[in-house]
Parts: sequence; C-alpha cells; structure tokens
Amino acid sequence: MTTETTATPNTQPNPRLSGRLAELEERLLDGDRRALARVLSWVESGDQRGREMLRALYPRSGRARTIGLTGSPGAGKSTVTNELAKAFRKRGQSVGIVAIDPSSPYTMGAILGDRVRMTELYSDSDVFIRSLASRGALGGLSAATQDIVHVLDAYGKDVILIETVGAGQDEVDIAGAAQTTILVNTPNMGDEVQTLKAGIMEIADVLAVNKSDLPGANRMVSALKALLSLNPDRGWDPPVVRIVATQGEGIDKLAEACDSHFAELQASGKLQSAELDRARQQITSLARANVLNQLHTESGEEHLARLANDVASRVSDPHTAAAAWLAGS
Amino acid sequence: MTTETTATPNTQPNPRLSGRLAELEERLLDGDRRALARVLSWVESGDQRGREMLRALYPRSGRARTIGLTGSPGAGKSTVTNELAKAFRKRGQSVGIVAIDPSSPYTMGAILGDRVRMTELYSDSDVFIRSLASRGALGGLSAATQDIVHVLDAYGKDVILIETVGAGQDEVDIAGAAQTTILVNTPNMGDEVQTLKAGIMEIADVLAVNKSDLPGANRMVSALKALLSLNPDRGWDPPVVRIVATQGEGIDKLAEACDSHFAELQASGKLQSAELDRARQQITSLARANVLNQLHTESGEEHLARLANDVASRVSDPHTAAAAWLAGS
Repeated sequence: MTTETTATPNTQPNPRLSGRLAELEERLLDGDRRALARVLSWVESGDQRGREMLRALYPRSGRARTIGLTGSPGAGKSTVTNELAKAFRKRGQSVGIVAIDPSSPYTMGAILGDRVRMTELYSDSDVFIRSLASRGALGGLSAATQDIVHVLDAYGKDVILIETVGAGQDEVDIAGAAQTTILVNTPNMGDEVQTLKAGIMEIADVLAVNKSDLPGANRMVSALKALLSLNPDRGWDPPVVRIVATQGEGIDKLAEACDSHFAELQASGKLQSAELDRARQQITSLARANVLNQLHTESGEEHLARLANDVASRVSDPHTAAAAWLAGS
Repeated sequence: MTTETTATPNTQPNPRLSGRLAELEERLLDGDRRALARVLSWVESGDQRGREMLRALYPRSGRARTIGLTGSPGAGKSTVTNELAKAFRKRGQSVGIVAIDPSSPYTMGAILGDRVRMTELYSDSDVFIRSLASRGALGGLSAATQDIVHVLDAYGKDVILIETVGAGQDEVDIAGAAQTTILVNTPNMGDEVQTLKAGIMEIADVLAVNKSDLPGANRMVSALKALLSLNPDRGWDPPVVRIVATQGEGIDKLAEACDSHFAELQASGKLQSAELDRARQQITSLARANVLNQLHTESGEEHLARLANDVASRVSDPHTAAAAWLAGS
C-alpha cells in the first residue's frame, strides 16, 4: 500500500493561498463572521479548501483559552454555557462556542433543541456559536472539534467553550481535551450513580452543581466531594460550585474557578504538556482516518465485500482477510 | 508506507500447524479445557500462536448460536447469564460464556465482582466461562470478542453467551454483534431514561425485565412497550419478558424468546446477512489495527513526538503533520 496524501508531506505549514482563499483569510482575520462561517463549514465537511485554510490559519492559533462542559442530558449544560459566555463577555473577552450535537447512530438516541435557548447570545457580535453535527468528519468528532477550535482561536476568540452531551466516550474525550473541563451535575437525577459509571469524574477540573436551589443539592455536593476524595493525588483539587444557571447565580464563581484552574495549569507547566498531548492525539486520529480513506475506495470496498464473503463462508478467516485487504491482493 | 503483514496475504486459511500447535489443536478439538484456555489466552494477548490457532480453527466455527446480554450495571446481567446458561444446559446444549470486563481507562470507572456469582457453573464441564479484560487487544475489544467466540464455537459450544456491561459504545456494539441481543432492564432504576439515552433499544431483540417482583415492574414493562411502539418497522417485534433471575423465574420463557428470534432470523435470511456484516466489521477493525501497529513502532513514535512538538509550537499544523507521519518523512 502506498500512501497518497492530500497534503505535501513536509512539516512546514504552507500559508500561500490562492487569490480567493487569501481574500477569505483576510476577511476572516478582519473579523468577518460570514467568512468564518464559510471556513468552518468547509472544515467540518472535510472540504479541501478547509484544509488549506486550516494550514494557513493554524500558526495564528494557540492564544485562546478552551473550556469544555459536559454532563448528563438535562443537567442544563446549554444554559450554563450560555451564562458562562455572558460572564466572559462582561469582562470584555470575546467568546466562541462549539456545541457538539450527538447525532447518535440510533434513531432514538438524542434530544436536541437546547440550542434555541442560546438565541440571546446570537445578537452579540462578539460571540460566535457553532453547532458541530457530523460524526462522519475526517479523524472523528474529536479531530473535527479541534480543527474548529483552532479556526475560532485564529479568528481571535479569547475564550472557546466546548459543550458536549457527554453521552458517549467520544463526547467525554472532547470535553476532556479542553484546557479546563467543567462537569455539570444536578440534584435528584441519580447523577451520583451516573457520574461513577461514566468515569467522567476523572476528567473534571471544576464541578458545577446546577439547579442547586432544588432539594438534594446538599446531598449531591457531598457525594461529589466524597468521590473526589477517593482520588486525592491529582495535583489539583477540583472545586465544587453551586449554581442556578437559569438565574445566573454562581456563574461568576464558576468562571473564577476556571481561572484558578488555568492559573494552576500555567504554574505547573501542564498547559504545555496537555497541548502536546492534544497535538499528538489529533495527528494520530487524522493519520488513521487518512489510511482508512485510502482503504475505503470503491475498489477497496469491492475487495472487502469479497473478503467478508470468504470469511462468512469460512473460506478465509478474519485475520488472513484483513492482511489480504491491506495488501490489496 | 509499505504493508508488513504478519499473515501471508492470501484468502485461504492455513490449517498447517507446527507439531506442538497441531497437538494443541487436536486436544482442543477433543474437548480439553486446558488446551482451550491456553489458546484463548494467546488469542486475547495477541500472541502469534493465537493467530495461527485461529486460522486453523476458524473453518470449524459457524455452528454455535450467539446471544448477547447488555444493560445497566445493577440490572443483574450476570445472574441472568448464569440462569440462561443453566436453561440451555437443561436442554443438553453446551454453553460458552464470554464476559466483557469494562476495564475503564478511568480508575473509578467500573465495579466488577459479579463473576463470583457464576461459580456454580464452573463445576459443570459443559460450561466454559471466559472473562475478557483487555481493551488493548488488536482491533479493539469487539474484534477480540469475535475471535474468542470463534474459538469457543470451533471447540464445539452450542450456545455462546456474551455478557457486556453496556456502559459504552464498544460494549453495546459487542452485544449488538451477537445473533440475538437481550437487553436486561430492572424496575426503579431510572432505566426508562437510561435506555433512551444510550439508544440501545435499537439493538435489542429481546427485552428482559429482571427483578420483576419489585414495585414498578408494570410501569417498566409499559415504558419499554411504549418505546418499542415508536419504531414498529423493524420486522421483528421484540418480546418483553418478565423474569426474577435470582429465583430462576421466567428464564425458560426468555430462552424461548431467543429461540423465536433465531427462527425468525433463519426464516428471513437475516442470519446470513448479519454474519456477513460481522465478518466485514472484524476485517475492517483488524486492518485498521494492523496499520496502527505499523505506525506505532519505536521510530514511528519518535517521529510522532517530533511532529506533535512542531504542531504544539505552531511550526506545523495537524493535517500536514498527519500526512508527514504517514509518509514517514
């Protein structure tokens, strides 16, 4: 198998764009939202022009703070994201929001619609909201999310909020790849158990107890603190912040908790090492996706169909067939 | 990149084993449990001898019935698996059990220990229980599970039960890859919501309501039937079976529901098409894993580390770096 790469295989970015793309880049860097939206659409759909824009814009990224928000459906993540965006805006910082729609492979998988609550922010020109729907993106949802974060970063957003439903490992990984990850919980949702199950306590840097005016909030806070005490050696003591997002209560405290965590990352040098981890992760995902794209050509699919038939009829076995598929023979 | 495959890339299985492996194969086919256990260990750890044994044994597989069991932690899956195994044994059928341990990447991810309840079956020589722990298996947990099922199948087990916690997409995929999938629910666990969320209703062929002597069982049965009615066009109407697994109640009915589903698969021709899908899926997973193994060599890792550094420092961008990594330049 030979590798047919879409990019010139050198390690230097290639910022020379053709006339139209160069013009689009200029408009984007000037703060043109429509130019940004177009580039993000290309990036999300895997369009070659998106790849070129990314290459050109990437050197300008690396300045934004990234905050992931995850938690169970119904925990009020969208409202928390919304309020947190307002809090950063109050400080004069511009905000980008990337909301990951689950688009479950199963028809009954997911309930959306929370997006509508964000309309308030749409009228603020210093907030840009992007809903990322496709699971089919090159390198998976995680790599696509990183691409979009990089573009928003180059565009000049100070803070980028990444909201995911946390329903699957993919979404948890995405939230965990932000510099700071907020886990949004609520009282009375059996969340103590759910939190344990998904294992997302491990990736949470800040814990928010939303709807903390409801009964059971104290119990939830205690349960979370008890869980945190099981793993005391993480070098950072995740604060548990009570909020009532619909009233805006506790949001400033939540933003301050994020600040403290960011300061700790800077002080400990973890900001750099985590950035390196993310880069490594994205390169690996993209390389894997490139290889798969090469295998899943039309003739590759035909070959695979024949091999699957051989395996199902016991003429071949899966390992031999996999080797044959890779060898193209 | 050239492909260095561990197997000869032809589509014919290679049943010629060297002296010792041939002897082991003979013992395994004679029903020697220790020979089976050794082969399964090799298969699970990715040992080359396991690959060779698989190639030799694979043509003898394809006879066993496979039943997947999934559901929330605490639903009593292990007990149901246990009782179902006994029900098939009563009919004179031999049983293999593959239990998938989650081994979450997070330290607080999973509670095991249910295995101990199965000790009763360990004394029955016609039941073989294998707990599959490694997520690191070649091609992922799903491909490793299929390998183990194939070996148990060739060994002569009539029925193979695959129990997974259903905590993540991987586990759900594994259960869904069996010929028949049982979703185990319980009353009063907020399962109505959980079921909806994970989207596993879509892969369930038979629904069991365990602990149906508890209050809320009627409500759970109604909720499941209501959910099923949302998707009436699946060509098979999944029965909802009430059981009390700890008392053995309803287990015969559950086994009969599995039989009915199997009969429907045979009648509709879906048995063959699903087998083809599984073969295709496993070939793809293994091919992908092979490619990654080639990339993640020692020199490949060093290259990746340099590229990640370039990306993190904005000397390169992720897409360019991915192409460079694949090109080995």
